[in-house]
Amino acid sequence: MGVNASAATPPRLSFPPMHFEILATAGSARAGRLTTPHGVVETPAFMPVGTQGTVKALDPAELRNAGAQMILANAYHLHLRPGEDLVHELGGLHAFMGWDGPILTDSGGFQVFSLETLRTVDEDGVEFRSHIDGSRRRFTPESVMKLERLLGADVIMQFDHVVPGQASMAVARDASERSIRWLVRCQWALAELGAREPGPPQSLFPIVQGGVHAELRRDAAAAITALGDWDGIGIGGLSVGESKADMYRMVEVLDDVLPTETPRYLMGVGFPEDLIAAIRRGVDLFDCVAPTRMGRNGTAFTSAGRVNVRRAIWRADPRPLDERCACATCARFSRAYIRHLFVADEMLGPRLLSLHNVHFLTALVRDARAAILAGAALPEPLAAVDAAPAV
Amino acid sequence: MGVNASAATPPRLSFPPMHFEILATAGSARAGRLTTPHGVVETPAFMPVGTQGTVKALDPAELRNAGAQMILANAYHLHLRPGEDLVHELGGLHAFMGWDGPILTDSGGFQVFSLETLRTVDEDGVEFRSHIDGSRRRFTPESVMKLERLLGADVIMQFDHVVPGQASMAVARDASERSIRWLVRCQWALAELGAREPGPPQSLFPIVQGGVHAELRRDAAAAITALGDWDGIGIGGLSVGESKADMYRMVEVLDDVLPTETPRYLMGVGFPEDLIAAIRRGVDLFDCVAPTRMGRNGTAFTSAGRVNVRRAIWRADPRPLDERCACATCARFSRAYIRHLFVADEMLGPRLLSLHNVHFLTALVRDARAAILAGAALPEPLAAVDAAPAV
Repeated sequence: MGVNASAATPPRLSFPPMHFEILATAGSARAGRLTTPHGVVETPAFMPVGTQGTVKALDPAELRNAGAQMILANAYHLHLRPGEDLVHELGGLHAFMGWDGPILTDSGGFQVFSLETLRTVDEDGVEFRSHIDGSRRRFTPESVMKLERLLGADVIMQFDHVVPGQASMAVARDASERSIRWLVRCQWALAELGAREPGPPQSLFPIVQGGVHAELRRDAAAAITALGDWDGIGIGGLSVGESKADMYRMVEVLDDVLPTETPRYLMGVGFPEDLIAAIRRGVDLFDCVAPTRMGRNGTAFTSAGRVNVRRAIWRADPRPLDERCACATCARFSRAYIRHLFVADEMLGPRLLSLHNVHFLTALVRDARAAILAGAALPEPLAAVDAAPAV
Repeated sequence: MGVNASAATPPRLSFPPMHFEILATAGSARAGRLTTPHGVVETPAFMPVGTQGTVKALDPAELRNAGAQMILANAYHLHLRPGEDLVHELGGLHAFMGWDGPILTDSGGFQVFSLETLRTVDEDGVEFRSHIDGSRRRFTPESVMKLERLLGADVIMQFDHVVPGQASMAVARDASERSIRWLVRCQWALAELGAREPGPPQSLFPIVQGGVHAELRRDAAAAITALGDWDGIGIGGLSVGESKADMYRMVEVLDDVLPTETPRYLMGVGFPEDLIAAIRRGVDLFDCVAPTRMGRNGTAFTSAGRVNVRRAIWRADPRPLDERCACATCARFSRAYIRHLFVADEMLGPRLLSLHNVHFLTALVRDARAAILAGAALPEPLAAVDAAPAV
């Protein structure tokens, strides 16, 4: 490979097209503006997830109208299908999927480590079997940088080692320290790729690991901060089975030690109450499959709690999913109609619910942003309770 | 029931809100304008089919942008699920499904007779079993009028007796004559319902049956024409297994005997070459599930023939489905991307293809209309051939 990953001074990459400014704060909460090569993201922001190069059930135009500013795609899935070479050949992910706004690709770390029995880790990387055809594959920091470069997203996440939420201090430390060594290899790999030929303008985000152990989180943050002038920093390994209290505590710990002026991205978090809790603790960016996955399964986020649209109590309910919602679903369709679509197994049902849920989350963080700018109280979404039936 | 269905003089219903004018002709082809309670339909027009109160995979706004002016919904399916009472309670089909343009409901005749072993016909009506739960149901001309009135479409089709395309003269005659007796009962039923309480403004369209037998078609047309001042006349029992030559011949026969000034609606026809062949023979309205069904299955209509998007030859093809197409799919997405969506089983694939196919047919009949108005040659779409791969 020719790269000395243990070199004391990794290359300091510079990513000129990205810029973050904080416009207002309220305690730890921040309202900001992230400028990317594909446009501005007003933060806090929620990124819908387009796992296979499409946010499930939604069209890019719809997504934009639902308030999405930036989206996420999964390097692991796109590597398996259709392959990064094909995406590159067709002009990169933006052109391929018809989304001209900013895109972030994750590194595949989370997916690979979710494969359980299908993978083996060593210091060099991870060997795993494709969940599609069982074929043997190998991800290393170097291979993932090449992969993400070919996909061409605005933000590319480092390849990291993710452990379950309940991992012991020893296991979490091992994975965290490996993730930091892999970060350095990602830096070298990107520098080498860039020296060979110019690529798309991309910013590498490191990922802070460390499980639910404050000490590990602090150590990781310090090490990562010393390694580069980052355009953003990921907080990984949360929302993976630990308690909400542990998750919030880790975010608090990092709020104290991460550089204030750098955007913080809490990976995989997307329930309404968690978004607000994390915004209060200084987080700027989020992603989660929840709005689209729950939407496909027939559950809507609403200002009155969750609505399972399949329930018989909505059979003749003329009200929209959420009377306070301005989305294209709530403006036009009743609960009764959406319930009919789900009962009749019509594709428009998952579409309308996914659209509503994405809008719900983007509106929630937009409201939080407005509150920070205005010095007002943050919204307080209901936790996961079922909405009461009509009275 | 108190209705004497064999009365010599059925009630002549009047449907003031509907109006048809022919703006130009070219041979038998006509360019017209059908004014309905929910807006104008420029004819010839193709109506996408919203079987269960939704045009599969598509949103009403998308449908409008794809050029749909009027859509069809199925009384049979909506009766079974969610039920006409519920649709009525929620304001009728337009409000229920969020489509404010004109709607036509078929009568369930075609569906009921497609059930094969699940039904028995007598002079009174048809007894059948629900394809969903096997429950026993009965459709009569009277029950279907009540059903379609509760659904509230602008155009409601009579309940008719449909026989297969190869039906003998005797079988076809029996069904055709029964359909005419049922038409009279539909007229009486509507008159009775209207006398009891005012309903939505609706026009009843009769349906000419008669299989592939010219004599039966002529007889049916004459009998139906004598029974009312129709706002439109359906041509049924075609595209049900007979040859294309037989279908075209029957349309020609009817072109000679149906009143010129009345819109003609060829039911269930929607392949590009058939639309043009029937427009040449004086047809104004069409419906078919083909564009959405084929779209869900991965086949696109294009100006170069049909494209099966799953084929490996499109794997890296950067071209749109159809380079001459202006639809929202072709403006934004490559064959390679759409193929990826189908291979990855992503819902956006069926969405984009259904959208394209609907646009393809609405654009085709719009082009035919423009040609009639301009005195130019009608478009000549390719018959069902596979598009050649890229060269």
